[in-house]
Amino acid sequence: MPQLTHPEVDRIRLDHVLAALGNPVRLGVIARLAAGEHLNCTTALPDVPKSSASHHWRVLRESGLLHQQREGRFITMTLRRRELDERFPGLLDAVLTAAAETA
Amino acid sequence: MPQLTHPEVDRIRLDHVLAALGNPVRLGVIARLAAGEHLNCTTALPDVPKSSASHHWRVLRESGLLHQQREGRFITMTLRRRELDERFPGLLDAVLTAAAETA
Repeated sequence: MPQLTHPEVDRIRLDHVLAALGNPVRLGVIARLAAGEHLNCTTALPDVPKSSASHHWRVLRESGLLHQQREGRFITMTLRRRELDERFPGLLDAVLTAAAETA
Repeated sequence: MPQLTHPEVDRIRLDHVLAALGNPVRLGVIARLAAGEHLNCTTALPDVPKSSASHHWRVLRESGLLHQQREGRFITMTLRRRELDERFPGLLDAVLTAAAETA
């Protein structure tokens, strides 16, 4: 399995974060993680073809939005909330509020 | 010339806005408009090939981020600031602050 690489917090790029969030499937994943859901790569997106799901996870990980960790047969996902709030104050809150109010 | 169509404020979609902002050229245009620059389609992006520039303007217009208006030979651009702030409170401020601090 390939190495799961994550950008350091000071390398997280605004345009990459916005592009990653600019997709309804990925925005939905981030909203669910922010709401406290526990997601893993096998169960999180049951209606999305596996290759599309893999693409979405990669975009979310490489943008710096989430952290992926192998746990046995699964890869679990954690929102990098504290780091994102440190890097871009108020951004994730504004996005999540907008997502909740216009869903 | 094709009709310039703009979404009504209550049809502006968060994922479209985020995807439109998730590109450094488009993010730069929005930051310049927010800072009060007057941009038109001929002078705004001198280093971008015309076909790419046209694509960026279309994405920005169709997402609801800016308003385009023909004025003689030019098309001028206006940020839909009030409408965006009404639709997604705090979002554009957070994005612009993040863009300014990590540019």
